[in-house]
Amino acid sequence: MRLKAIIRYDGTFFSGYQVQPKGRTVQGVIEKVLTKMHKGNHVRVTGSGRTDKGVHALGQVIHFDTELEIPPENWLRALNTMLPDDLEFVSITDVPDDFHVRYDVSEKEYRYYILNSKEKDLFRRHYTHFVKGDLDLGAMSKASQHFLGSHDFTSFCSANNDVKADKVRTITDIAIEQEEENIILRVKGTGFLYNMVRIIVGTLIDIGLGNREPEEIIEIIAARDRSKASKTAPPQGLYLWEVSYNKKSTERSPSDEMN
Amino acid sequence: MRLKAIIRYDGTFFSGYQVQPKGRTVQGVIEKVLTKMHKGNHVRVTGSGRTDKGVHALGQVIHFDTELEIPPENWLRALNTMLPDDLEFVSITDVPDDFHVRYDVSEKEYRYYILNSKEKDLFRRHYTHFVKGDLDLGAMSKASQHFLGSHDFTSFCSANNDVKADKVRTITDIAIEQEEENIILRVKGTGFLYNMVRIIVGTLIDIGLGNREPEEIIEIIAARDRSKASKTAPPQGLYLWEVSYNKKSTERSPSDEMN
Repeated sequence: MRLKAIIRYDGTFFSGYQVQPKGRTVQGVIEKVLTKMHKGNHVRVTGSGRTDKGVHALGQVIHFDTELEIPPENWLRALNTMLPDDLEFVSITDVPDDFHVRYDVSEKEYRYYILNSKEKDLFRRHYTHFVKGDLDLGAMSKASQHFLGSHDFTSFCSANNDVKADKVRTITDIAIEQEEENIILRVKGTGFLYNMVRIIVGTLIDIGLGNREPEEIIEIIAARDRSKASKTAPPQGLYLWEVSYNKKSTERSPSDEMN
Repeated sequence: MRLKAIIRYDGTFFSGYQVQPKGRTVQGVIEKVLTKMHKGNHVRVTGSGRTDKGVHALGQVIHFDTELEIPPENWLRALNTMLPDDLEFVSITDVPDDFHVRYDVSEKEYRYYILNSKEKDLFRRHYTHFVKGDLDLGAMSKASQHFLGSHDFTSFCSANNDVKADKVRTITDIAIEQEEENIILRVKGTGFLYNMVRIIVGTLIDIGLGNREPEEIIEIIAARDRSKASKTAPPQGLYLWEVSYNKKSTERSPSDEMN
């Protein structure tokens, strides 16, 4: 049986989502707990995508296969009892065996929280990115609209070796809002490149501070050159907010249910 | 020269304010940095009072003596550069040599944050106390008024060996407010016993949940018996908000300034 779960985590003390030789990871912590529940038989967990060290998630989605016959609500209670307090399962449902949490994604939403105030907030240092100077929301909002649609986002992707990989991605919605001293970027797309949201945010901050013009986004995208965009914004302001799937991929057909 | 400083800290990763043989403490971290600035000569720091492991402070006050001739604004920059990111100096001023940060306190304010919602908030687990059931704000508010004035607060003090010490304290102001899903207790007094605010909060929560009646506060106070009050509320919701001093104790007289 394949199970799909929505999970939340505070990324502060994880070395990112994906298992790695050293460091505490989200995947590693979940696999350890699941393996314990399966009497030592290793359970492999697949995520909708990676998040970096310090990046948070309110709606990360994972899947795993199990032969245990436990009702979903009991799964939730059992897992949350065993998991540490910076990681929790929000929901768990059974899905068709061919559902894939990464391949079947239809859309992802990220949000980025900027604290734009005169003073740092010690208590939010792990949860927002503090920017001191006054940000011009209008300029940032205007600039953000240039990201909409399908573009080659090479300029907004951390350099990696795989130069031949397709860097075209589609942004379906982007908005910047202010809530008291917080400036929040919401961005939805069918997929994102490595560090793409954080480089977009870094560039929008430069525009908000008046260091660059909103129209420069058009040139930066066209250049397909990472060095043309601004600095990558730090991880602590970033939240993987929601991952969406086509309904049909997550619904078990009558025949599936007879398995 | 005696300096008075207002400091803020996130208590999550401190084993409390006061230096102890093991564990990272607020006083310990500050003394280490000051001692480094004084070329290895140990600088002793005195606080307005202790805070426990996990308790936060927005307005803790300390004093220390120094022979370094550094303008206050440079002190601030130097210290904040050397301190870790969960501890900061908000202000630093010179005071008369006979000013004492603990003996000269005129009033202290604590606040306690309760998250009263259907679901826990992973991202605020270190900064609020989560209470699931609906709290009756009216009952809590009514109950809180019985704490006003001078009382023997033995029932609201964690048991300790010093049974003969005077347990009479004066609460000058107490209020309970709701801000969205947060219920905030503000309490001011001339002094507080060990765990006094957290036992008051624990008892008010019991009243808010309907487990006890507001009028019971009168009997609990009169009993002078810790076992009559409710459980101590956990530390993460508590903030030492402000410590006040009589103006004369913090103002240097003309003759002091000539020292």
